[in-house]
Amino acid sequence: MKPIYFDHAATTPLDKRVLETMMPYFTDIFGNANSQHMFGREAIKGVDTARDTIAKLINCKPSEIYFTSGGTEADNWVLKGVADAYKEKGKHIIITKIEHAAMLETARALEKKGFEVSYASPTTDGIITPEEIESLIRPDTILIGCMFANNEIGTIQPIKEIVEVAKKHKILTFTDAVQAAGVIKLDVKELGVDFMSFSAHKFYGPKGIGALYVKNGVKIATMMTGGHQERTKRGGTTNVPAVIGFAKAFELANEELEENAKYVTMLRDRFIDGILKEVPFVRLNGHRTKRLPANADFSFEYIEGESILFSLDLAGIAVSSGSACSSGSLDPSHVLLAIGVPVEIAHGSIRFTFGKHNTIEEVDYAIKSVKEIVERLRALSPLFNAKDGEIKNV
Amino acid sequence: MKPIYFDHAATTPLDKRVLETMMPYFTDIFGNANSQHMFGREAIKGVDTARDTIAKLINCKPSEIYFTSGGTEADNWVLKGVADAYKEKGKHIIITKIEHAAMLETARALEKKGFEVSYASPTTDGIITPEEIESLIRPDTILIGCMFANNEIGTIQPIKEIVEVAKKHKILTFTDAVQAAGVIKLDVKELGVDFMSFSAHKFYGPKGIGALYVKNGVKIATMMTGGHQERTKRGGTTNVPAVIGFAKAFELANEELEENAKYVTMLRDRFIDGILKEVPFVRLNGHRTKRLPANADFSFEYIEGESILFSLDLAGIAVSSGSACSSGSLDPSHVLLAIGVPVEIAHGSIRFTFGKHNTIEEVDYAIKSVKEIVERLRALSPLFNAKDGEIKNV
Repeated sequence: MKPIYFDHAATTPLDKRVLETMMPYFTDIFGNANSQHMFGREAIKGVDTARDTIAKLINCKPSEIYFTSGGTEADNWVLKGVADAYKEKGKHIIITKIEHAAMLETARALEKKGFEVSYASPTTDGIITPEEIESLIRPDTILIGCMFANNEIGTIQPIKEIVEVAKKHKILTFTDAVQAAGVIKLDVKELGVDFMSFSAHKFYGPKGIGALYVKNGVKIATMMTGGHQERTKRGGTTNVPAVIGFAKAFELANEELEENAKYVTMLRDRFIDGILKEVPFVRLNGHRTKRLPANADFSFEYIEGESILFSLDLAGIAVSSGSACSSGSLDPSHVLLAIGVPVEIAHGSIRFTFGKHNTIEEVDYAIKSVKEIVERLRALSPLFNAKDGEIKNV
Repeated sequence: MKPIYFDHAATTPLDKRVLETMMPYFTDIFGNANSQHMFGREAIKGVDTARDTIAKLINCKPSEIYFTSGGTEADNWVLKGVADAYKEKGKHIIITKIEHAAMLETARALEKKGFEVSYASPTTDGIITPEEIESLIRPDTILIGCMFANNEIGTIQPIKEIVEVAKKHKILTFTDAVQAAGVIKLDVKELGVDFMSFSAHKFYGPKGIGALYVKNGVKIATMMTGGHQERTKRGGTTNVPAVIGFAKAFELANEELEENAKYVTMLRDRFIDGILKEVPFVRLNGHRTKRLPANADFSFEYIEGESILFSLDLAGIAVSSGSACSSGSLDPSHVLLAIGVPVEIAHGSIRFTFGKHNTIEEVDYAIKSVKEIVERLRALSPLFNAKDGEIKNV
C-alpha cells in the first residue's frame, strides 16, 4: 500500500500544474526582476502578473502585497515592524495563546525589548472571542494579532468581529492566514484587517515563499534591509519562480475551493465519526464545526501521542503530534493547554489533516489502524490499566 | 541573434543538472523536514546531505551552516544578530564603503538604534587594506565586516589579512561571499572568519536560498523567531528543494571552478582589451587583476550609463549600470564614488559580468556594439562636444 499522507497542515505536495507554470522561470526567464534589461523585464512581468492575481483574490491593491520567504518571515515582520513603527504611540500588543510559534516567539523577543504583550485565552472550544480581546485592550495597545485558523486544532476565529472591536479603539489588526488561505475565501476589505500573512506551501504551492498584506497608509518598519525590492520594504533578490508558483497555486486553490472543501470535509467527518465510534476515551479538540475542513485533532487518553505517531508511521500513515515547527520539543502543545486539555491528556494528541489527493479508502484504513494501535498501546499502559471509570468519549 | 546575457553578477540561470536534482523534492519527497514521519524523514535526509556537502566544500562542520532565504537575509542576520548578542561588550562595528546594500542599509538601521558604524575606504583600485581596517578599530568594536569580492567592480579583498588584524584585537569577522562563492575556492578555517554569507542564485543555483556560516562557539541572536528549524536559530519551514539545489549547484561550481574561471577570464580579458583599444575616454574600474574572473566594469566619459544600457538592450545585450538591487535609484554608484571616480564619470558606468554559457562571438559582438553606441551617444552629447582634451584611457 502507498504511504498515506494525513499531514497537510505541515505542508502539501506541489501541484503539478503549479510546477509546470514555474518551470520556464528556472532556466529561461531567469532574470533578476530588478534588472533593467530584457531578461529583467520578462521576470518583472511575471512577478507583476502574479502580484495582480494574488491581490485580486484577496480584494486588495497589488501595492499592498509584499513577498516574503514564508509565513514565519511575514509574522516576524508584522510584530517587529509594527512595534518599531508605532513605539512612540504605545508599547502594548495583544496576541492569542494559540498563535503559531512564529508569533509567540516573536512576541517573547519583543517583551525582552521592553514591549508588553497580553495573550488572549480561547474558549474550551478553541475560539477567541471578541469580548476576550476587548478585555485586554489598553490605551497604549498598538496591535491586535489573532490567527485566522489554528494550525493544530483547526478552529476558525471570528476575525471580522475582532476587527470591529479593534476599530472601535482605533487599533491595528493582523491575522495570520497561513492555514486559512486557499481553504477559506479571504477578503481583506470585508474583514477590515490591516495585515495578513500567507505561506504558499500550505495550499499546494512552493516552499520558501509567502506574503504579507499591508493596508495602504499603515506604517511598518522594514525588517529585511537592503536593495530596492518590494518598494524598498523588503530587500533581497525576488524569488521569481516561487512568486509565479504562489500565484498559480493560490488561483487554483481559490477556483477549486468549494469543491475541495466539500471533499475534505466529507473525509474529515467520516474520520471523526469513525474514531469517535470505534475508539473509547478519545477527545476531539476544537469546535466541532467552526474548524478547517481538513482538520481532525484528537487526544487519546492514557497513551502518548509520540507512540501513536510512530505506530501509525509503521502502518504507513503520516500524521503529526502537533505543529511540525515544534517537533523535537517534549512540551505538550500550548494550544491544547490553552483550551484546557489536562497536561496528561494533551500528551496523547494527534493531528490528522486531509488533502485533495486523499481517498475514502485511506480514511477507513486509518480508522482501523488507529483503533488497533490505540488498543495495543493501552494494553501496555499502566495508566490505562489502573484507570477507574467507564468508557466514554469527551 | 539570441539575446546576450552579460549580467551574471545580478543572477544566473539555474543549471539544468541542478534543476534535475531538485525535481523530485517538489512533488514526491515533499514532506516538511521537521515532520516526524516517513515523508519528513525523506526530506530531512536530503537536507542533511545537502548541508554536509556545503560544509565540506567550505571546510566547516554541518552544524555551522544555517540556511536563509538568501544573501540579504544572511547579511541582515549577521549585523543585527551580532549587534544584539554583543551589545554589552561594545556598540561599534566596522564595515566598508563598498559593501552591498544589504550591509549598508542594515548598518544604517543599527545606527538609528544607537550603534556606531565606521566605514572603511577602499584604495582607488577598489581594495580594502588591512591597515585601513586597523585604523578604525576601537576598544568597543565588536565586528568587522568586509565583503569577499565586490558586486560592482569585482575587486577581491584581502580577507585573510583583514582577519589577522581583527584577531590581534580579538574582534569577530564577517565576510559576504555572495559574489565569490562558487567562483573562488573558500575555506573558512584557512580564512579564519567567524561568519560568511552565501546566495545560491549567483552560481547557477536556485533563487530564494542562501546560507550563513556561523563558527561554532560564536554568539548570534536569532533574527527569524519561530519554530525549531535550523537548531532554533532560524524559524520557518525548510525550503527543501532549494536547499537541495543550493548544494548541487555549489558542488558543481566548485568541481568546475578552475575550468570556468579560466574560460570567463579569457572572455573578460578579451572584452577589456577590446574596449580599451576601441573606445576612447574609458576607465576600467577596480584593480586590473585582483578582480573576479567574470567582471569588467567601465566608466564611459561624457555619457550616461543608463543610455548605454538601454542602447545595448536594444542591440540584444543585457548589462547592468550598477547593482541590480539599486536599480530605480538615480544616485551614482556608492562603490565608484568610494574609489574616487568623479560623480559625472560615475554616472557613465556599465558592469559586464560573464558566464559559462557566453561565447567569444558574443564578446566580439559586444565590443563592436559598445563602440558604436558610445560613438553615437557622444555625438549627441554637449559635454563631449565641448570637451577640451586629448583622447585617452585612464
